[in-house]
Amino acid sequence: MPKRYGQACPVAKSLELVGDRWTLLLVRDMLAGPRRFQDLQQGLPGIPPNILSHRLKLMEEHALVTRRFYSDHPPRAEYALSDKGRELGVVVGALAAWGSRYVHRQTALVHAACGHPVEIKYFCRRCAGRVAGATIELRRRPGGRGGSTRRARSAGPARGAPAARRAPRG
Amino acid sequence: MPKRYGQACPVAKSLELVGDRWTLLLVRDMLAGPRRFQDLQQGLPGIPPNILSHRLKLMEEHALVTRRFYSDHPPRAEYALSDKGRELGVVVGALAAWGSRYVHRQTALVHAACGHPVEIKYFCRRCAGRVAGATIELRRRPGGRGGSTRRARSAGPARGAPAARRAPRG
Repeated sequence: MPKRYGQACPVAKSLELVGDRWTLLLVRDMLAGPRRFQDLQQGLPGIPPNILSHRLKLMEEHALVTRRFYSDHPPRAEYALSDKGRELGVVVGALAAWGSRYVHRQTALVHAACGHPVEIKYFCRRCAGRVAGATIELRRRPGGRGGSTRRARSAGPARGAPAARRAPRG
Repeated sequence: MPKRYGQACPVAKSLELVGDRWTLLLVRDMLAGPRRFQDLQQGLPGIPPNILSHRLKLMEEHALVTRRFYSDHPPRAEYALSDKGRELGVVVGALAAWGSRYVHRQTALVHAACGHPVEIKYFCRRCAGRVAGATIELRRRPGGRGGSTRRARSAGPARGAPAARRAPRG
C-alpha cells in the first residue's frame, strides 16, 4: 500500500491508489487493450522489473487491473484494465490535454473526425449540458460518513474546469 | 527536478511536473485562492516543512505558482496558482470524480445548481459538442518535433472518456 495522506478527500484517496510513479503511465498503456508484462516493460524504458511487478500487484489488489495467464510453463500473464481502471482514462486524458498545452507542445489532443483540439469539461446529465467549473461542488452524500465538504470552483470561467476548492468553514 | 520518464508523451511530461507526492494536493488547495505557507501546511497534515518548501520551489520554477511576500520581517510569502497551474484544476477534478465514484463514496462531485453528479467529458469546439473518448487522438502538431503518435481511444463508450491509447505501429 502506498503512503496514505490521511485526508477525507476523494482527490487524496485517488492519489493513494494511482499517485505512485509509473502507475498512471501503466493505465495509459493499458487503455489500448490488454498488455503482457514484457509489453509494459518495453513501453516504459527505465522501469525496473521489480517495480513494474509491484505496481501491477497493487493495481490488481485495488481492482484496477485483472491478470490472466496465457502460458503456464513458463508462467506468463497479461493485464487488462477493469472498468474501475478504465475510468481513470479521463485522468490520463486531462494530463494529456494539459501537457500538450504546456509541457509537450509537439502534440495535441484532437477530435479525430475534424482534427481540432478537444477540451475537457464538466457535464451535468440532469441539466443536459456543459457546466462551468465555477458551479461544481464536492458534497457529502446523504448518509455518507465523515469527509469535510470541499468546493470545486473555478477561479476563472475562461479556464474551463479547475476544481476541488476547500469550502469555507462553518 | 523530479525524476524524468524520458518519454515523448504529454502524460509523462506532465507527471514529471506534478506527479510528486503532495503536488496535486497543493494545486487542489490553491484552487480556492492564494495560500500562505502555514495555510498549506495546515491543510496537509503530515507534510514535513522542508518537503512543502521544496514542492513550492519546484512549482514556482515550473511557473505553476507565483510567490508574493506579504511580510518582510519576518519574511512570509503567499502562493497563488498561475494560469498554467490553475488549468490543472481539471486533473484534480477528474481525480475527484473518479475518487468519489470508487474510493471515497462519502462525497460526490455535483452541479451546485441542481445537486446532481457531474461527469467529465471531451468537447470539440469546432464540432460544438461532446465527443466520445473513442474519437480522441493524440497527434503530433504540424512542425512539432519528435513524439510518437499515441491514440486516445475509449475502450467502451459507456465509460465516458478514457484516453491516450498507444497508436498501432507503422
